[in-house]
Amino acid sequence: MPPHSPHPPLDADEFRRQGRLVVDFIAEYYDRIDDYPVRPAVSPGFLARQLPETAPSQPEHDALAAALRDVRDLILPGLTHWQSPHHFAHFAATASNVGALGEALAAGLNINPFTWAASPAATELEVVVTDWLGKALHVPENLLFSGGGGGGTLLGTSCEAMLCTIVAARDRKLAEIGEERIGDLVVYCSDQTHFSFQKAARIAGIRKGNCRAVATSWETGFTLSPKALLAAVHADVAAGRVPLFLCATVGTTPTAAVDPVRELCAALSGAGHDDVWVHVDAAYAGAACVCPEFRNVIEGVEAADSFSTNPHKWLLANMDCCALWVTRPHALTEALGTDHDVILKDGAADGEAVVVDYKDWQVALSRRFRALKLWLVLRCHGVDGLRAFVRSHVRMAKAFEDMVRDDARFEVPVPRQFALLLRLREKKQRCHDDDAGRVINELNRKLLEAVNATGRAYMSCAVVGGVYVLRCAIGNSLTEERHVQEAWRVVQEQATVILAVVKRTGGDRTVCNAHCLEIDGKASASFLAGK
Amino acid sequence: MPPHSPHPPLDADEFRRQGRLVVDFIAEYYDRIDDYPVRPAVSPGFLARQLPETAPSQPEHDALAAALRDVRDLILPGLTHWQSPHHFAHFAATASNVGALGEALAAGLNINPFTWAASPAATELEVVVTDWLGKALHVPENLLFSGGGGGGTLLGTSCEAMLCTIVAARDRKLAEIGEERIGDLVVYCSDQTHFSFQKAARIAGIRKGNCRAVATSWETGFTLSPKALLAAVHADVAAGRVPLFLCATVGTTPTAAVDPVRELCAALSGAGHDDVWVHVDAAYAGAACVCPEFRNVIEGVEAADSFSTNPHKWLLANMDCCALWVTRPHALTEALGTDHDVILKDGAADGEAVVVDYKDWQVALSRRFRALKLWLVLRCHGVDGLRAFVRSHVRMAKAFEDMVRDDARFEVPVPRQFALLLRLREKKQRCHDDDAGRVINELNRKLLEAVNATGRAYMSCAVVGGVYVLRCAIGNSLTEERHVQEAWRVVQEQATVILAVVKRTGGDRTVCNAHCLEIDGKASASFLAGK
Repeated sequence: MPPHSPHPPLDADEFRRQGRLVVDFIAEYYDRIDDYPVRPAVSPGFLARQLPETAPSQPEHDALAAALRDVRDLILPGLTHWQSPHHFAHFAATASNVGALGEALAAGLNINPFTWAASPAATELEVVVTDWLGKALHVPENLLFSGGGGGGTLLGTSCEAMLCTIVAARDRKLAEIGEERIGDLVVYCSDQTHFSFQKAARIAGIRKGNCRAVATSWETGFTLSPKALLAAVHADVAAGRVPLFLCATVGTTPTAAVDPVRELCAALSGAGHDDVWVHVDAAYAGAACVCPEFRNVIEGVEAADSFSTNPHKWLLANMDCCALWVTRPHALTEALGTDHDVILKDGAADGEAVVVDYKDWQVALSRRFRALKLWLVLRCHGVDGLRAFVRSHVRMAKAFEDMVRDDARFEVPVPRQFALLLRLREKKQRCHDDDAGRVINELNRKLLEAVNATGRAYMSCAVVGGVYVLRCAIGNSLTEERHVQEAWRVVQEQATVILAVVKRTGGDRTVCNAHCLEIDGKASASFLAGK
Repeated sequence: MPPHSPHPPLDADEFRRQGRLVVDFIAEYYDRIDDYPVRPAVSPGFLARQLPETAPSQPEHDALAAALRDVRDLILPGLTHWQSPHHFAHFAATASNVGALGEALAAGLNINPFTWAASPAATELEVVVTDWLGKALHVPENLLFSGGGGGGTLLGTSCEAMLCTIVAARDRKLAEIGEERIGDLVVYCSDQTHFSFQKAARIAGIRKGNCRAVATSWETGFTLSPKALLAAVHADVAAGRVPLFLCATVGTTPTAAVDPVRELCAALSGAGHDDVWVHVDAAYAGAACVCPEFRNVIEGVEAADSFSTNPHKWLLANMDCCALWVTRPHALTEALGTDHDVILKDGAADGEAVVVDYKDWQVALSRRFRALKLWLVLRCHGVDGLRAFVRSHVRMAKAFEDMVRDDARFEVPVPRQFALLLRLREKKQRCHDDDAGRVINELNRKLLEAVNATGRAYMSCAVVGGVYVLRCAIGNSLTEERHVQEAWRVVQEQATVILAVVKRTGGDRTVCNAHCLEIDGKASASFLAGK
């Protein structure tokens, strides 16, 4: 061991000392998180320039303490603080004490439960905890182990869940029609579906042109219309292609829209296409199903083939944790199973009972012990605690919505659905009609920039139906009503500033494009380049 | 909040208290790990039967403490203890204090650095640390950021690295020859390559019949022969198929064999196939390259397109961490990139500089802050510390090999390469020649079962060239020479018992198959069913 490392790399006593340093560091971070701008004002290369070009040969004295000082002084100021109570940009990655400590505990045990035999208790806990979670979320019995046929697993992300289910559906279909027809397979989603789905389909070898992102509209609240889906399916069948897979979304990324799962499944089935694999992606909004009053958003999911949600998003389970349930695990293990490996088969419970070997439910062989973390979250908060958590955010979002509606300059362009959207409205009447849309969009873009530049709130945006909207997602563990109120004050203040500039420089003729906003023919350079 | 949860889910003071509980729990686990049988003697369902069927509605009093008691009493006895110093079965998943605490710290910060803008410091640290690691492992400049063209990323597993590179190679090739020819693409590996590769190729839509696992042999030490590879390539080309991808392995799973990377690349290039993407998978043995005396095992890797190794295996980085370097990141981002997303583009450093958006280097959008952990490991151990760590295991393996060679009943069937193989030899001369192989294999299988049943050592097996060998991989953080000596004593003791049974019941006529060993026509029921 080098001179400054008197302890072996894994050492219980030193772990007690170092563990306290890290626990205190994290606690202090939570104490001070309010002091950081949510999003750092740094330029590319800022950190790389401050670090040596090579790793040290020898560790310095008390290297962990020194490294933690660097984390505090160099790294924290350059992070986007996802746990900040002022972070409203993306669907939250909710942290909890037990979520973080569950990760720590799993990292400490550091097992690799790829088969039942490789760590029996870890596999069994995953079987138990995916059933627990499924029941808590009112997931239908046919997707659970306890229902007899189905079952769940814990993956890292929704994209992985999509990829695994697409591959399962693909191989089942190709076994029927022949491998050479892979180019004929078609997958379906809406134009609001997260891009991860198209990426997953591409990774699985689905042709670029064979991913149908069916158009949505204001009329249906940007949900996927069963009629439009069927039209796309029929056109493909008429052209000799083979419908394979539908990804319906419960809680889309842009507006948290809820695709009508029951009607979509019924439409496919009614048209003789019940062999199309239906996956329901409820990455964000699945958490809401813990509350009986929101269970209706997954109405009809018992007719789907698979369902996934991310407890790391809104259920306090820390990064990463995606729960995937399937009605027929056999379809997954047929496509992703690897039975021939003598090394892994050794020690399996041959003949005694059928065990779950989770390596056959996922892309990789190796896996972390995620079940431990989720089990701790469920044990330590209880289903009631999770309900209270979700409801507190919905309540705050409702309060935010009310404040927005009370300010005539703003509108709520699509119905609030868990998260909330808002949009600057003022000035519409002062523009020529044909340019109005672009100008309003540009104003809202400027508003978002201005809000985020304050460091006191961080929001994001979406473009739906040609309309640029500010996107405010409430759901962080540390966010309280006062933070939501402050965020709204920031938005109002910045809107006032922007509208004052527009008033000062503006008139009737308004030209706007993505890079340039001209008002009354004069380029408002200060407005564009500055704040 | 429910009655027993006076604290909000994320709470600094409570985190200090709960964090100490978990740190002490992990430390105590390390203190006592020697007391656990490495592999538990449990039956399927043992844990599920002891847990309630649903999650609690309300958490119990001090729920974390209660849950930790259950971890201790119900879960730990059912785990396979990967950190046990007696675990020699799989390539180690080495844990370290700072590896585990790096995971804890990342879980505490709980950010999602999918783009540079989503957390600038996290992306920059990953850029820095993959270069640090690459330099420490003597990876060629053309694979590093600092070399100008290449660069690295941190993924979860080797299978993910394989999948991403196969998809990059696939899409580059299909852009040239047309998407409809996906069925003509062929990938190559050896019959010793980890099954993850064939799985990754299948996920990427490569036809089942188009994965060539080129046969290896005793003569070449189970490495992939460039001549045999070229023969396979030529046959495919002659049949109108398109060679796409070669996965060479440095440190195969069965015997840690090292494929000749330089010669394989030269063979492909010499035959006009330098457009075949060559990936070098050094999941396990890449760590050894931290020692200059082992650098030769990746000789020639500068001619490859990508290279990966798992710091979670032998470099103290805890689960999970796979480092992937590519010479042309553009090939990855072309295939896996998603540029159209307005939500994610917001806040990017437009125009200012080219930044790395790691979501375009991997399957998923979301990702954990793995760079923090690896940076802590490199800072706190230094390159010299990692060298000392690797060398200590190689020294122990050499000592083990010497002990095996000193016992005439055993042989070392393939040259030791980092890990070690051993095999029972005795009794060969007492069998009919045609049955000899099967009998010896069966004896070795029985020996492995007996060794593992003691709980004092856990080894695995491999079948190479028709020969069943015991596989003993030395590399755990807590393993010291005394553990290796004890493991060898266990093997010797169990061999003595088994050979005594054979002597008592055996004769000349020997029949053996996978399920049944008969000696002298009498079924040795006790031998077969029992220990």
